[in-house]
Amino acid sequence: MRSRLKLIVSYDGATFSGWQSQANRSTIQDRLETAFERICSEPIRVHGAGRTDAGVHALAQCAHADLPARRYTPDRWVSALNGLLPSAIRVMQCRFVSQEFHARFSARGKVYRYRIWNAAVLPPLESGRAWHVVRSLDFDRIAAAAQEFHGEHDFRAFSANRGTPESNTIRTIRAVRVRRAGPCISIDVEGDGFLYKMVRMMVGALERIGVNESSAREIKARLQSPPRSAISRGRTAAPADGLFLVRVRY
Amino acid sequence: MRSRLKLIVSYDGATFSGWQSQANRSTIQDRLETAFERICSEPIRVHGAGRTDAGVHALAQCAHADLPARRYTPDRWVSALNGLLPSAIRVMQCRFVSQEFHARFSARGKVYRYRIWNAAVLPPLESGRAWHVVRSLDFDRIAAAAQEFHGEHDFRAFSANRGTPESNTIRTIRAVRVRRAGPCISIDVEGDGFLYKMVRMMVGALERIGVNESSAREIKARLQSPPRSAISRGRTAAPADGLFLVRVRY
Repeated sequence: MRSRLKLIVSYDGATFSGWQSQANRSTIQDRLETAFERICSEPIRVHGAGRTDAGVHALAQCAHADLPARRYTPDRWVSALNGLLPSAIRVMQCRFVSQEFHARFSARGKVYRYRIWNAAVLPPLESGRAWHVVRSLDFDRIAAAAQEFHGEHDFRAFSANRGTPESNTIRTIRAVRVRRAGPCISIDVEGDGFLYKMVRMMVGALERIGVNESSAREIKARLQSPPRSAISRGRTAAPADGLFLVRVRY
Repeated sequence: MRSRLKLIVSYDGATFSGWQSQANRSTIQDRLETAFERICSEPIRVHGAGRTDAGVHALAQCAHADLPARRYTPDRWVSALNGLLPSAIRVMQCRFVSQEFHARFSARGKVYRYRIWNAAVLPPLESGRAWHVVRSLDFDRIAAAAQEFHGEHDFRAFSANRGTPESNTIRTIRAVRVRRAGPCISIDVEGDGFLYKMVRMMVGALERIGVNESSAREIKARLQSPPRSAISRGRTAAPADGLFLVRVRY
């Protein structure tokens, strides 16, 4: 009987090729699996709640792994894993869960945060942690337009292709909160699930509204009449730097 | 007639050997002087308001430089310099000032912030930006003891030697503000000037009070009867990572 360990993982995405394991790339999943293997002396698969792209950060990604025996307490697992991981990845918490729990399939929702720094110069301590937008943004327009995303919609026009197209592109956004603190605009989005690059394409659309090149009606139109296939609208996707996975809800 | 340019400079101290120019080291002053030299085609000396050590950050360090001619507007200087600087150093603002202004000698005071992260695990996005203290800190004890620093004192016992000893070790602390946000304790200290490692030694003393190994009376005693010479009390100096130069007052 193997024990299932649930992990809360935080990382600075700047120096990794994203979450998901890739041949010859440095990913967060790879680093975690390597650490587990060194402790357990056998290959251990780590299942994440979802992928994050290169450069995307996580305050609390969630994952699970099936381990050969309860050799450690959860707190010991935290320190054993952190002792082998680079400081840009940290296991914040661990606990044993039942075999019914699955980091990906049990997830009921996620919260993402996107940070925009709207000023002439990006402070060095914000480098890699915010999208630097120099042109002046109309905060009120962004805050109002962001509410168009609220509710259940077909988000096909706010997604990019990743290999096989998603068969179901309907998602529900439960809350969108837009705040401002000095030059920093934070957009928190909570939903039952997210398509590939969805948050970044939502924020890309909001930025165009903020500089008056588009309006809330364009968001409404894209949600109401999504294109047949998820065309890669890369030009409207905000960069990875400003995106944070805040938490996964179960 | 040369023009004196005042600069507000922000930096992530993690990858630099501090502010002050050193042979064969990468310092912020060196990087700025190299950028000026490339633009002006002659060596330009940059004068900072004060040194910061390796690993110490600045939200708004202040500096000045005397330039051969007013070839650019202040905004052009900002973008020309930033175009040559690494993203970990940014000139936030520039303006021309009179020859009476001197970044160091005109300074009337400085504000420093020190950040302590008091939790079992340091989140990766806080790495290099806070002192990770695992043992539980008593916030109220720290906040109360910090007020002992308020006012004019001989801070010799809260300084380390750097080459020749300081002849005058009297400094005035105008304000100490201690705040808590979740596991983060921030200590803002405003004073007319600071001795070498002074803030880090003040915070080192406060941490010992927070874990109940010392008391506010020890701070009082060290301020009232400073040792003859500034002995290197390295063991009580908090690490550089958590220290931020917030602003320089003129």
